[in-house]
Amino acid sequence: MDIEKSIILEIFKDITFSDKEVDLIESKLKKLELKKGTTILQAEEIVNSQYYVYDGCLRTYFIDKSGKEHTLQFAINDWWISDYTAFFTASKAIMHIETIQKATLYRISRTSMEDLFIEIPQLETFFRKKMEKAFASFQNRILASLAQSAKERYLSFINTYPNIEQTVKNYHIASYLGITTESLSRIRKEISLD
Amino acid sequence: MDIEKSIILEIFKDITFSDKEVDLIESKLKKLELKKGTTILQAEEIVNSQYYVYDGCLRTYFIDKSGKEHTLQFAINDWWISDYTAFFTASKAIMHIETIQKATLYRISRTSMEDLFIEIPQLETFFRKKMEKAFASFQNRILASLAQSAKERYLSFINTYPNIEQTVKNYHIASYLGITTESLSRIRKEISLD
Repeated sequence: MDIEKSIILEIFKDITFSDKEVDLIESKLKKLELKKGTTILQAEEIVNSQYYVYDGCLRTYFIDKSGKEHTLQFAINDWWISDYTAFFTASKAIMHIETIQKATLYRISRTSMEDLFIEIPQLETFFRKKMEKAFASFQNRILASLAQSAKERYLSFINTYPNIEQTVKNYHIASYLGITTESLSRIRKEISLD
Repeated sequence: MDIEKSIILEIFKDITFSDKEVDLIESKLKKLELKKGTTILQAEEIVNSQYYVYDGCLRTYFIDKSGKEHTLQFAINDWWISDYTAFFTASKAIMHIETIQKATLYRISRTSMEDLFIEIPQLETFFRKKMEKAFASFQNRILASLAQSAKERYLSFINTYPNIEQTVKNYHIASYLGITTESLSRIRKEISLD
């Protein structure tokens, strides 16, 4: 179980736990080793868990009425992922989440989190701060969608997700940026000439 | 001071406080009565506070390199407002916030909040839940910008901010939706004919 303990310290870095607390957290986490292309959440499912990405890469996407996919987010090592709107309210997902690479995840349920917050208040602070960062990144994303060109948004995508381009399909990146794959190719060509 | 106490209970509804706790919160809140058109935050300022909107209406906006304004958010009664990216990290604002109506606000600083979280852990839970809701609303906004038409985004704007249209200038609404004022007029005409 020593490996698990070192992973717990890695997930919740900057927190000092007692051995008893580590055991408690361990009892709440479920390790998942998943193949590429595994769907971990489907729209219309009740969302009771969030996932820590230990390695691999995942994609959260939304399918609109016309059947078109829109990528909301990618998640790489050390990110948490879920359909948070549904997770926070214990309601039905509007999004799908799939692995786009072989992935190792740690799942935790909302009720486990609530139990842990009572036993280990530092964890509530930890998740509040995670949420603040995620909120800030969404705020910047909204500003970018209002104020930036597609080229600027692409550059900031590369910055947010370094080395992800080898892993991710072009149409996923295009759907994350809200542009066509043709526009994405044009932007890449422009940048290579800059 | 009885009025202040009832306001504190209104701001933090669903929490039961002792009298001592109410006094403590009261000592951390600063009431502001502001005229229409008052700037409460400017880009480049260090952000140390957030604001509870008791009444009135405010607007958070970003000015891009070309000098164009982009409205990120409006805040009405019972909303909290700040440049949260900067607030959470105690860094410089990238946004401006102004009253677009006479407003009554309650200001609280980050350090006061941290003090309160230690004394009254329920407040940390309260703000975590607020943050979760705000995060969910930003998530929906990003999805909307990827997947919805301008008309659908306008209808959801009206839904989010009922009765705000009398208060807010057309170009503020257009800049929130990421469209021109001409497109906004066209959408309104379409809806009135539906």
